[in-house]
Amino acid sequence: MDDHVYRVIQIVGSSEKSIDDAIHTAIARASKTLRELRWFEVVETRGHIDNGRVHHFQVTLKVGFTLEGD
Amino acid sequence: MDDHVYRVIQIVGSSEKSIDDAIHTAIARASKTLRELRWFEVVETRGHIDNGRVHHFQVTLKVGFTLEGD
Amino acid sequence: MDDHVYRVIQIVGSSEKSIDDAIHTAIARASKTLRELRWFEVVETRGHIDNGRVHHFQVTLKVGFTLEGD
Amino acid sequence: MDDHVYRVIQIVGSSEKSIDDAIHTAIARASKTLRELRWFEVVETRGHIDNGRVHHFQVTLKVGFTLEGD
Amino acid sequence: MDDHVYRVIQIVGSSEKSIDDAIHTAIARASKTLRELRWFEVVETRGHIDNGRVHHFQVTLKVGFTLEGD
Amino acid sequence: MDDHVYRVIQIVGSSEKSIDDAIHTAIARASKTLRELRWFEVVETRGHIDNGRVHHFQVTLKVGFTLEGD
Amino acid sequence: MDDHVYRVIQIVGSSEKSIDDAIHTAIARASKTLRELRWFEVVETRGHIDNGRVHHFQVTLKVGFTLEGD
Amino acid sequence: MDDHVYRVIQIVGSSEKSIDDAIHTAIARASKTLRELRWFEVVETRGHIDNGRVHHFQVTLKVGFTLEGD
Amino acid sequence: MDDHVYRVIQIVGSSEKSIDDAIHTAIARASKTLRELRWFEVVETRGHIDNGRVHHFQVTLKVGFTLEGD
Amino acid sequence: MDDHVYRVIQIVGSSEKSIDDAIHTAIARASKTLRELRWFEVVETRGHIDNGRVHHFQVTLKVGFTLEGD
Amino acid sequence: MDDHVYRVIQIVGSSEKSIDDAIHTAIARASKTLRELRWFEVVETRGHIDNGRVHHFQVTLKVGFTLEGD
Amino acid sequence: MDDHVYRVIQIVGSSEKSIDDAIHTAIARASKTLRELRWFEVVETRGHIDNGRVHHFQVTLKVGFTLEGD
Repeated sequence: MDDHVYRVIQIVGSSEKSIDDAIHTAIARASKTLRELRWFEVVETRGHIDNGRVHHFQVTLKVGFTLEGD
Repeated sequence: MDDHVYRVIQIVGSSEKSIDDAIHTAIARASKTLRELRWFEVVETRGHIDNGRVHHFQVTLKVGFTLEGD
Repeated sequence: MDDHVYRVIQIVGSSEKSIDDAIHTAIARASKTLRELRWFEVVETRGHIDNGRVHHFQVTLKVGFTLEGD
Repeated sequence: MDDHVYRVIQIVGSSEKSIDDAIHTAIARASKTLRELRWFEVVETRGHIDNGRVHHFQVTLKVGFTLEGD
Repeated sequence: MDDHVYRVIQIVGSSEKSIDDAIHTAIARASKTLRELRWFEVVETRGHIDNGRVHHFQVTLKVGFTLEGD
Repeated sequence: MDDHVYRVIQIVGSSEKSIDDAIHTAIARASKTLRELRWFEVVETRGHIDNGRVHHFQVTLKVGFTLEGD
Repeated sequence: MDDHVYRVIQIVGSSEKSIDDAIHTAIARASKTLRELRWFEVVETRGHIDNGRVHHFQVTLKVGFTLEGD
Repeated sequence: MDDHVYRVIQIVGSSEKSIDDAIHTAIARASKTLRELRWFEVVETRGHIDNGRVHHFQVTLKVGFTLEGD
Repeated sequence: MDDHVYRVIQIVGSSEKSIDDAIHTAIARASKTLRELRWFEVVETRGHIDNGRVHHFQVTLKVGFTLEGD
Repeated sequence: MDDHVYRVIQIVGSSEKSIDDAIHTAIARASKTLRELRWFEVVETRGHIDNGRVHHFQVTLKVGFTLEGD
Repeated sequence: MDDHVYRVIQIVGSSEKSIDDAIHTAIARASKTLRELRWFEVVETRGHIDNGRVHHFQVTLKVGFTLEGD
Repeated sequence: MDDHVYRVIQIVGSSEKSIDDAIHTAIARASKTLRELRWFEVVETRGHIDNGRVHHFQVTLKVGFTLEGD
């Protein structure tokens, strides 16, 4: 975190297991196309309910990454 | 999520185990009396401390459900 | 929670395992020097990413404790 | 708006036509079961997209009504 | 505040006397129909003005209560 | 939007027809006494309900205008 | 609160006695120069401390009034 | 809204006609280059004023879409 | 409020009597151990309910004081 | 800051040089017509971009002043 | 700012010199790959501390630009 | 920013020169008594006005530091 310029994007990951897992899912997917991911921040935690039980969690993240070529 | 009207209520679930479990507890209790629960959103995550350790987590949720008879 | 006066401080715990564990870490550390911790509230959940994976979670908490001598 | 006590509930109306119409839909549905609705406040305006076009608007409202028996 | 599930509702009390009294009014009214009220939080403090003077205060509260049968 | 100094005021317009119309009403009224209105921002959208239907919309706006003599 | 246009201004009242009194002070002062004050909303409650005691309360209000000539 | 990962972007649409139309304009433009748009949320509603009348509305939206290849 | 550096801490006072009294209680307790308290700001007003009545008010304050040795 | 009543207005200053200078510009302009300006608070910092460079900064301020005749 | 559609992205610039310079750095970097940048808004101002002194400022900006082909 | 626990405190620095300088003043003062300061975040930027000009800037910061003995 020195003199670079970062870009921040927003993504939403989901998981039937847990909030933590929804975060892992989102980061893993984002890292397929973006190099140099550095940090994330949870913006919102939601979920869908089916038959009176949590069907899956949905976690919205801000993710920061170094702009290439800095 | 098409042409229905939803109602949104706020509930607080607690658990000695985890944040995820406090959410499951709240949804399970709400589903006893409300049919057609559809989604939730975490509003606040708190907890009580006893003897220098987390005694239980308390998670406040907004929960949406379809108004019957739509 | 009767007639006492509380003080509220802000701390940040981290963990490579989970959000829940980062909270436990922060509370455990705070209880080393502060007696009578009573409750906490999650203010912010962030994390660092390394090699396209979550390296560790960082959870910012408000923690309330009874002021001694009340 | 004199000495009464009001209750405030949150509902979500939807409409394929417009934001205004989603509000009308929500108020009309709420008035089926609640007497003495007095005012509303828009909390959130969202919508679903299908085939690159707005499929329907979803407007979340706080609605206040006089508690009967005041 | 142990393992129960709470519900949180929003009410508005008013009083010509004071902010404190508007809170008392709202709690008293809510307790007529809801058992096990536990806590409240002030969401908004407003008022109406007549002839250049405060005619009455209006205080919006979130009120939490234990869900029966827990 | 160059080197001028702007002032920002807050007004509330209402309309029985629509949200858009309540905005037009507020801007039209403000322009009677203020020259050089430049932009607005919607701060809050509320409304009054009568007989189970929206009686009128009330839209609160911030309105910016150039301070004369700049 | 029908078809009028309102203007909303922000004022700060103070009192050595109480929060309520700081509100009364602010409304009384505003009504000297503005006719048709209708409602207020508390935006912020602060105060100054002298010698370890509250010296005076300062309450910031939004105050709405009917624009003349509507 | 099952196990996908979504990305959320922010766009601003404008229209001389209405708020609803500014939303349609923004969604239509975004759908030219992005497939699988799913939902939007209104973040801010502003507008420009010319000659004492609304010249055009500007609506800022968050728009969510499925990340391809999930 | 000239060239000093201030520190801001957060405390919670409670009172069975009133909101104002809960503020006085908190300030009085803080002044036992901190010199040079200068101002406060109300962050949150809550309370506990017992037997359908307000048992006590709890007011969270930010309190600013001059750092000694400036 | 004793027993006076203050009014708070919102203004926007701009400068091609710096954020600080945009604040100075706004205060200088406001002081032409308003006596007894006492404090300001930065509400928003924006700017316009031309040819890939900051063309000018725009800083929105709340400015408080003593109401004359108190 | 007429009938175009804008996109808004979030970037973080840093500078060892000043807040203003961190903004210039971020805009300069963004303009390398994005044409038609129009405006920015400061979202957050942070910084890193080394040896008891500010090592560098980090300013998070929303930046708006015209979508090409409008 | 690895596995440590941080504490976050709030301080207010002031300067007659600039916003940047008020931040430097606050950090310098805090580093006299606290080791291992790591980062800061600007919470609020205010100032006092004298004779129609900015007399001094006041910047409120959150400052994070490593808890010793981790």
